[in-house]
Amino acid sequence: MNYLNQLNWRYATKRMNGQQVPQDKLDRILEAIRLSASSFGLQPFEVFVIKNMETRKKLKPAAFNQPQFDEASEILIFAYYDNLSSTHVNEYIDNIASTRGVSIDSLEAFRKTMQTTVDTKGKEALHIWTSRQAYIALGTGLVAAALEEVDATPMEGFSPEKVDGILGLAEKNLKSVVMLALGYRDEANDTLAKAKKVRKPKEKFYHFI
Amino acid sequence: MNYLNQLNWRYATKRMNGQQVPQDKLDRILEAIRLSASSFGLQPFEVFVIKNMETRKKLKPAAFNQPQFDEASEILIFAYYDNLSSTHVNEYIDNIASTRGVSIDSLEAFRKTMQTTVDTKGKEALHIWTSRQAYIALGTGLVAAALEEVDATPMEGFSPEKVDGILGLAEKNLKSVVMLALGYRDEANDTLAKAKKVRKPKEKFYHFI
Repeated sequence: MNYLNQLNWRYATKRMNGQQVPQDKLDRILEAIRLSASSFGLQPFEVFVIKNMETRKKLKPAAFNQPQFDEASEILIFAYYDNLSSTHVNEYIDNIASTRGVSIDSLEAFRKTMQTTVDTKGKEALHIWTSRQAYIALGTGLVAAALEEVDATPMEGFSPEKVDGILGLAEKNLKSVVMLALGYRDEANDTLAKAKKVRKPKEKFYHFI
Repeated sequence: MNYLNQLNWRYATKRMNGQQVPQDKLDRILEAIRLSASSFGLQPFEVFVIKNMETRKKLKPAAFNQPQFDEASEILIFAYYDNLSSTHVNEYIDNIASTRGVSIDSLEAFRKTMQTTVDTKGKEALHIWTSRQAYIALGTGLVAAALEEVDATPMEGFSPEKVDGILGLAEKNLKSVVMLALGYRDEANDTLAKAKKVRKPKEKFYHFI
């Protein structure tokens, strides 16, 4: 499979046809997102995979009533940690130690680097940083979906406060930042389904030094 | 090619061996980044591809002297628009009109939506938004590099002010936000080259609703 063909094939699908994403394809897209790079490998966010139509009905008005809430197979919601703390850093260190069979002591310098980074950023700077990590995962998910020939829509048009309220994210120390709808394009009703992709020409996008 | 294998193969390469990325592979990675999704498709950022060793020598101290500046094949620097303005919106509208062969008038509603979004965000919120779009492209580039069996390192550890100064970004209305080194791992000297990948287990990362 030529991945550039797939990236040309994909577009932010506005209308989907309700067709469900097969479980094996969904599993691989989710695995790609889980494997996604993040600063230090810390993964300072979690992802909600929303299949339930009742929940989606509640979320829809918080997102300008976009039709993907009815028509997508799944809605993924990326949410970053509101308070990124030593708990997360230590959990990650524990995970490294057990995965790689090394001692926690041997990871002390790395733990300190991470903890210092977390401690020296203010709350707002931390939110900016952690949400950027979620966006790397969003980019990864978009490519994975395209490789699986599954349509996908990145969605920023929603009220995070309302979404957080509906999903009870405050109790989970999470804040929603971006969504990704997965499904299949409705070619008859999506005016963009056959539109040419528009991108800046190379010479306006790249500077070669 | 199994893309999950490639995502498992990749890691944030700390030491590279100086081997150059073949032009065809580099071209495809850059094309993937150019095709990357962004809000409205606006691509509110540009990318510097730095091969020149003199420039890299100057940049290195602005980025904690990380060895990738000597050892990578290319250093990509993503930089978002400091002032995202009607000029960018209108250029994009012109590009859509000419690419799709439609009139500028027919795009008026879309233009207004974008312009209102730009106008109603404060400068700081705009920076947050535009830099997130660059991170989607970073995620796309990371997957593309892995598919090309090219190593890559996302790099946030640098002084944007110093980098902007060295590259003269202020005159270009740009601000650097993240880097991506491309090259090949130095297995002998990179202690992480053979380390197991550490990720949160599925059940701590995903919430299925």
